[in-house]
Amino acid sequence: MVQYSASGLDASFAALSDATRRGVLEQLGRADASISELAEKFDMTLTGMKKHVGVLEQAGLVKTAKVGRVRTCKLGSHGLEAAAAWIERHRQLWGSRLDELDRVVEELKRKEKVDGRKRRK
Amino acid sequence: MVQYSASGLDASFAALSDATRRGVLEQLGRADASISELAEKFDMTLTGMKKHVGVLEQAGLVKTAKVGRVRTCKLGSHGLEAAAAWIERHRQLWGSRLDELDRVVEELKRKEKVDGRKRRK
Repeated sequence: MVQYSASGLDASFAALSDATRRGVLEQLGRADASISELAEKFDMTLTGMKKHVGVLEQAGLVKTAKVGRVRTCKLGSHGLEAAAAWIERHRQLWGSRLDELDRVVEELKRKEKVDGRKRRK
Repeated sequence: MVQYSASGLDASFAALSDATRRGVLEQLGRADASISELAEKFDMTLTGMKKHVGVLEQAGLVKTAKVGRVRTCKLGSHGLEAAAAWIERHRQLWGSRLDELDRVVEELKRKEKVDGRKRRK
């Protein structure tokens, strides 16, 4: 398994914290696109879209390549793996704590029942 | 299924883009803690930790409750679900595109083999 640095995760999550950038990733998930195509699609200036693509590229979520005058964008090969892995690990940890809580509640209910029966005797 | 707003996702991902805040979530995944306990654990001023907890609370990832003079922090009940769901959907989309690419490559290889055989005849 590849190890990811904290700063890599910082960059990935920061890149995902903008609706336009998430939209660009969804779009590139369907088909590669040039920056001007993306700018048009998201009703944005070329400069604005270049900035967003730059943030995504720095986070490794997007790769770009210039052929002639056109810069084509495509998804990076494993940019979201680290972010997904972090969230999954956290959810498991939290899930196991909730399970533990469930067990404690069940135990309390069971005891209450027993005590109730004792009191009625 | 609960629908999450784009701004909710913005806030969740922004909250996750800092190593200390991710650390706080991991810590609270193990046990609830007061802000001063968290500040000590992460070697940070109380003011600094309050800010981080504020960002996590606004994103719905953490809940706090003040009992007497102590503010206790615990994980929010479903703060990471939306972020996890977005990433998962994106990965599936991207995964299916990679599968498609695999099929195209296999198809090209197959054709090349056939063509090679034809040329040898």
